[in-house]
Amino acid sequence: MTDHVRAALRAQQIEVPSWAYGNSGTRFKVFAQRGVPRNPQEKIADAAQVHKYTGISPIVSLHIPWDKVDDYEALAKYAGDLGVRIGGINANVFQDDDYMLGSVTNPDARIRRKALDHLLECVDIMDATGSRDVKLWFSDGTNYPGQDSIRARQDRLAEALSAVYDRLGESQRMLLEYKLFEPAFYTMDVPDWGTAYAHCLRLGPKAQVVIDTGHHAPGTNIEFIVAFLLREGKLGAFDFNSRFYADDDLMVGAADPFQLFRIMHEIVQADALRNDSGINFMLDQCHNIEPKIPGQIRSVMNVQEATAKALIVDTAALDAAQQNGDVLGANAVLMDAYNTDVRPLLAEVRAEMGLDPNPMAAYARSGYADKIVAERVGGQQAGWGA
Amino acid sequence: MTDHVRAALRAQQIEVPSWAYGNSGTRFKVFAQRGVPRNPQEKIADAAQVHKYTGISPIVSLHIPWDKVDDYEALAKYAGDLGVRIGGINANVFQDDDYMLGSVTNPDARIRRKALDHLLECVDIMDATGSRDVKLWFSDGTNYPGQDSIRARQDRLAEALSAVYDRLGESQRMLLEYKLFEPAFYTMDVPDWGTAYAHCLRLGPKAQVVIDTGHHAPGTNIEFIVAFLLREGKLGAFDFNSRFYADDDLMVGAADPFQLFRIMHEIVQADALRNDSGINFMLDQCHNIEPKIPGQIRSVMNVQEATAKALIVDTAALDAAQQNGDVLGANAVLMDAYNTDVRPLLAEVRAEMGLDPNPMAAYARSGYADKIVAERVGGQQAGWGA
Amino acid sequence: MTDHVRAALRAQQIEVPSWAYGNSGTRFKVFAQRGVPRNPQEKIADAAQVHKYTGISPIVSLHIPWDKVDDYEALAKYAGDLGVRIGGINANVFQDDDYMLGSVTNPDARIRRKALDHLLECVDIMDATGSRDVKLWFSDGTNYPGQDSIRARQDRLAEALSAVYDRLGESQRMLLEYKLFEPAFYTMDVPDWGTAYAHCLRLGPKAQVVIDTGHHAPGTNIEFIVAFLLREGKLGAFDFNSRFYADDDLMVGAADPFQLFRIMHEIVQADALRNDSGINFMLDQCHNIEPKIPGQIRSVMNVQEATAKALIVDTAALDAAQQNGDVLGANAVLMDAYNTDVRPLLAEVRAEMGLDPNPMAAYARSGYADKIVAERVGGQQAGWGA
Amino acid sequence: MTDHVRAALRAQQIEVPSWAYGNSGTRFKVFAQRGVPRNPQEKIADAAQVHKYTGISPIVSLHIPWDKVDDYEALAKYAGDLGVRIGGINANVFQDDDYMLGSVTNPDARIRRKALDHLLECVDIMDATGSRDVKLWFSDGTNYPGQDSIRARQDRLAEALSAVYDRLGESQRMLLEYKLFEPAFYTMDVPDWGTAYAHCLRLGPKAQVVIDTGHHAPGTNIEFIVAFLLREGKLGAFDFNSRFYADDDLMVGAADPFQLFRIMHEIVQADALRNDSGINFMLDQCHNIEPKIPGQIRSVMNVQEATAKALIVDTAALDAAQQNGDVLGANAVLMDAYNTDVRPLLAEVRAEMGLDPNPMAAYARSGYADKIVAERVGGQQAGWGA
Repeated sequence: MTDHVRAALRAQQIEVPSWAYGNSGTRFKVFAQRGVPRNPQEKIADAAQVHKYTGISPIVSLHIPWDKVDDYEALAKYAGDLGVRIGGINANVFQDDDYMLGSVTNPDARIRRKALDHLLECVDIMDATGSRDVKLWFSDGTNYPGQDSIRARQDRLAEALSAVYDRLGESQRMLLEYKLFEPAFYTMDVPDWGTAYAHCLRLGPKAQVVIDTGHHAPGTNIEFIVAFLLREGKLGAFDFNSRFYADDDLMVGAADPFQLFRIMHEIVQADALRNDSGINFMLDQCHNIEPKIPGQIRSVMNVQEATAKALIVDTAALDAAQQNGDVLGANAVLMDAYNTDVRPLLAEVRAEMGLDPNPMAAYARSGYADKIVAERVGGQQAGWGA
Repeated sequence: MTDHVRAALRAQQIEVPSWAYGNSGTRFKVFAQRGVPRNPQEKIADAAQVHKYTGISPIVSLHIPWDKVDDYEALAKYAGDLGVRIGGINANVFQDDDYMLGSVTNPDARIRRKALDHLLECVDIMDATGSRDVKLWFSDGTNYPGQDSIRARQDRLAEALSAVYDRLGESQRMLLEYKLFEPAFYTMDVPDWGTAYAHCLRLGPKAQVVIDTGHHAPGTNIEFIVAFLLREGKLGAFDFNSRFYADDDLMVGAADPFQLFRIMHEIVQADALRNDSGINFMLDQCHNIEPKIPGQIRSVMNVQEATAKALIVDTAALDAAQQNGDVLGANAVLMDAYNTDVRPLLAEVRAEMGLDPNPMAAYARSGYADKIVAERVGGQQAGWGA
Repeated sequence: MTDHVRAALRAQQIEVPSWAYGNSGTRFKVFAQRGVPRNPQEKIADAAQVHKYTGISPIVSLHIPWDKVDDYEALAKYAGDLGVRIGGINANVFQDDDYMLGSVTNPDARIRRKALDHLLECVDIMDATGSRDVKLWFSDGTNYPGQDSIRARQDRLAEALSAVYDRLGESQRMLLEYKLFEPAFYTMDVPDWGTAYAHCLRLGPKAQVVIDTGHHAPGTNIEFIVAFLLREGKLGAFDFNSRFYADDDLMVGAADPFQLFRIMHEIVQADALRNDSGINFMLDQCHNIEPKIPGQIRSVMNVQEATAKALIVDTAALDAAQQNGDVLGANAVLMDAYNTDVRPLLAEVRAEMGLDPNPMAAYARSGYADKIVAERVGGQQAGWGA
Repeated sequence: MTDHVRAALRAQQIEVPSWAYGNSGTRFKVFAQRGVPRNPQEKIADAAQVHKYTGISPIVSLHIPWDKVDDYEALAKYAGDLGVRIGGINANVFQDDDYMLGSVTNPDARIRRKALDHLLECVDIMDATGSRDVKLWFSDGTNYPGQDSIRARQDRLAEALSAVYDRLGESQRMLLEYKLFEPAFYTMDVPDWGTAYAHCLRLGPKAQVVIDTGHHAPGTNIEFIVAFLLREGKLGAFDFNSRFYADDDLMVGAADPFQLFRIMHEIVQADALRNDSGINFMLDQCHNIEPKIPGQIRSVMNVQEATAKALIVDTAALDAAQQNGDVLGANAVLMDAYNTDVRPLLAEVRAEMGLDPNPMAAYARSGYADKIVAERVGGQQAGWGA
């Protein structure tokens, strides 16, 4: 395998979310797991384990207020001591009783102001943590036709986004996420990439679109969106996960590994894997029934394997077949890479990085899982609500 | 309007679920509402309000253990005093930590036994309350390919269903509900009507299929399933609600009123609206952001309006056009009924029943909403978790 | 009913497509119907019948080369003599063997040039017919991952669109249509509104987006897109039809009349029903199994009924309920309009316009259907291929 | 690799359809390809090429009337001389003008009789060719609500199926295929596996269900249906193809190779790969834009690769992890097989069978493609219509 493939794999960085280590579930039940973190520090400690064994996940996203602390500089230092750093700041304007009918798009001006204040607070936290990105996802929407004016809500949204944009520092960015449905069931105020794109375009270069791979209608070709936003210079981040039906938030690559490969193929073709490409490759998933840390390690490895396959595509042969209109030939070049077993290559890359070639086994052997079960007794387990 | 239409509308019965009056929400947030019931008695009191104003919802389903009481005979009497009666018993084998990997299909025999014991307990409660139906919905399934054997889980499911079936009294029934996805995301153990039908067929005549209108894949023609199960004599009940995307659990008729009409058309065509048809027409919805009691009244009215439209279809003209292959003519007969405003007719029917012609306004005027807000102070509001 | 509602209904204009009167079908079979037109003149004659009985469909779209004639001025005059006029020019770059792998996005420059020449020819025809709009729909896309470069195809698309845009006259417009899938099955080059919007935005004010109501993924909220594009000033036209599954091209309003109402509600709310709003309300459907002319009359009436319902929404009450966060109240205002039977109102409006109150019956009585069956003997029936 | 895996791979048989070698397309355009067969003999000759290079596709399905000949014994002998044999007989009751409103479910008794006569003729052809299976797919359905009675159509369907069933010889079978939509858009008369299953159950053991992998609603878990029908002893055949959206009929394994693997995993787990299992593994696809014979070779190889991966699953480890509730462990066992590159193994198996290890390259070198282009001049190319 050529050196540039190995180099790219060694340099790859995947951001992990602090909330993946807490409990999660569906509206029917959150099954508590033993050893789950009780505070942001313990979440970061768990995230550091993922980096320890994969070597490519040195960044941890925070979710405010779930990860609210008094001293963010201290939290950043704590992370640094564990070998990781604070990444994006994820705002949360969906869990206060005031937000029942919306946050920044609520018909009530007082509630809009409250929501905006939270968003601005997130930028303050970015200042304190040195984070580059604030990620905005809005649960805002309506459940019933007529409930509110679609257009008026867009006006209110635009106003709030503009206020946050103006508050951003020179090197700070706003990442806007879209989602088809849930928790709102008739309209979401940012339901698709087109809506997010149009707002970001008006705001300016510091506003970029986030693709959560679980937030689309059935049949949506996600890699098309990736390619299109890359061409427009408007792709800011991924929230990686996988789904069979809706926003299932399963481990990325678990439901459709071929799709993940096709996404990473578009990234590689556009030379956007580089760390200076401005794209934040983040996991955002719920390990409802599987252990959290191994679930994250497996997910990082799944992205890594898809990336490796994308890197070994014979680009010259692909281009030639495409230019010749050789449908089967072009497809075969892509499938040849996909069908290759890249696990031996990745084992070598890990060895080059001083890592165990088998991160899952190494973590399992480490005893960390038993340790946190033993140590984390009492207190309130972290979850979506806290 | 002919007398039989009015008679059918006066005789119609729609069952309401006790849990509709408690708090509900999504995995993101349950927004608490003021005045929400704190126990089964208060839920039944709220349900009785719905019947008071609509006149066609005299039956209340229970959910065990959410509605667990020491004395079910007393609860049944309490309901009777309020003018309503206890309907179906809904089992719950999805909220114990033991059920993380399934209840009756769990690989662990101990957990399967525990789940089965709960199902059998529900039949005991039927004996105590005089309920005819136990409704079985299983959240059982898997999230990841390979997680468990699809076939082995079917074997375990069949074994549990058989044990419950054998326990049923002479006039008792088992209603088996299917659901495409959620909370399991790779397989559900009863994902579609075919699976429920096949199990019910093997079990015998006391096992019948439940159609929850929100539990299908996009594009599924629900009225086809209704017609097919009616032809097979295997339709036992509806769980009515509406959806734009997934199992949104919105008010029935809110998302696609034409679909609701088409469903009721199949019911009327098969003469299955009669109360002795053995079909339980139940609501099963979540009023996440709207007030609960008015949400239920509106839903009952929506079913009633769809029924009225179905009843006024000119069947003779429809049959003639169908036999003649007159596509537009046949469609026009159906649409003529759908496009008719049946609200004046229903106002008359209500007057005949001694009811206010406008149930929503009558309830609003009653002061009940303010009363429960004032009275229900303290205690633990009912919801899915309690 | 207030005068402005009647005035708006009298002024409404719906464009009909010439190709609706020819044979159509699925890939499995095109069922020929008797009396179908054999040339553009006969198509226009049939379209004129639709206007004769509805009074609101005075415009006929052409499809090139299906409607190619030697003398477009003569064709326009012929239409005028029948009381209708030529509307949009629809380009066709999907039926030449050269276009197997794409037209303007084909990897082969020769084929791209050929396709572009056809598009420019369509603008020539606009000059000749006085048409305002050229409508561009591209079947271009790929069937297999890797078959071609998504990005390169966007570059080629942008180049072609730009060339057509530059050729437009002062008062001419380019309407860009998107479609999720079919005939390409892996990627379409313009799969969604976001893609069409982004291209139109770069091109300038004469480029506008077309919403075909059958071209979306399951679960897409079309009225949201309508509202959003109206807010952006980028909605140029509708292709109305209805669907249960994919691009079924059924009569508009037949599959989901409530959705059609919600779409027209957004139009009315934005005051975009006016003929000078720049939005072309066109039908685009296939009457595969029903007679064509009555199918079109019914479709025009369906749009008209949805429009009437949208016009009678109590806007003041709606706004008030929305501002108050009264979910059920706001929904009820909308549903009150939807549940109203507007057919008597429309019968009155037709009488005011000197029309028969029942267009379907009037056409049936006219004998036109028998006449064309008798007269149109021999020749080649029009269809998608000719 | 153990011997039984190699033995199973050598013994595998995949049936190819005669119509895959003719032209196909969408409703928008059928792009003619050069060298396409003009008669059943040439189709069989092309199919024999697929078997020549893959070694596992010795059976060719016929489609009547597309493959109608005067002397079926002669056709069977012709096939035998080329090393293949005639497989299933596919009935066609969707391309006569009489079938516009249905074939066996048509309201017109004369048309139903005509359709039934065709089905019975197919059994005659089975007698002549020695085919075991008649495959029934009905395009029957309705486009508009009210167009016909859903229930009456089921009655008519049951009557026709029963008549065909009674005509079957001792060792003959009827395979019933279901499809969600297309060409009918409101109801299909056999829309899902449940409907096909219910009919087959009533008919008896010679009636079995066909799973076409492209005939499901979005989100349907196909391998669940496979496992369920296997458990019920009611899975008769596959129509393999792949899809991103609807019934795209792309090469099997092209859109979601992981799904194909999961399907084959269920087959292998139930020991149903054996040739005496009674399951017909058939391709049914449209090579609209790629060359037909290489498209078929690639498809056979895709099924073969998925089968090989399914065969190497560590069943003991999988069972153990499943029994232990080890979610990640069980999933990892399955993924380990999926992520293995089985192409070297298959190259060895082919060598053992005396085949070129690379079927695509061997066919390309053979010159057959050029030969048929040169020889097949004049005549009418085969397609869906002839």
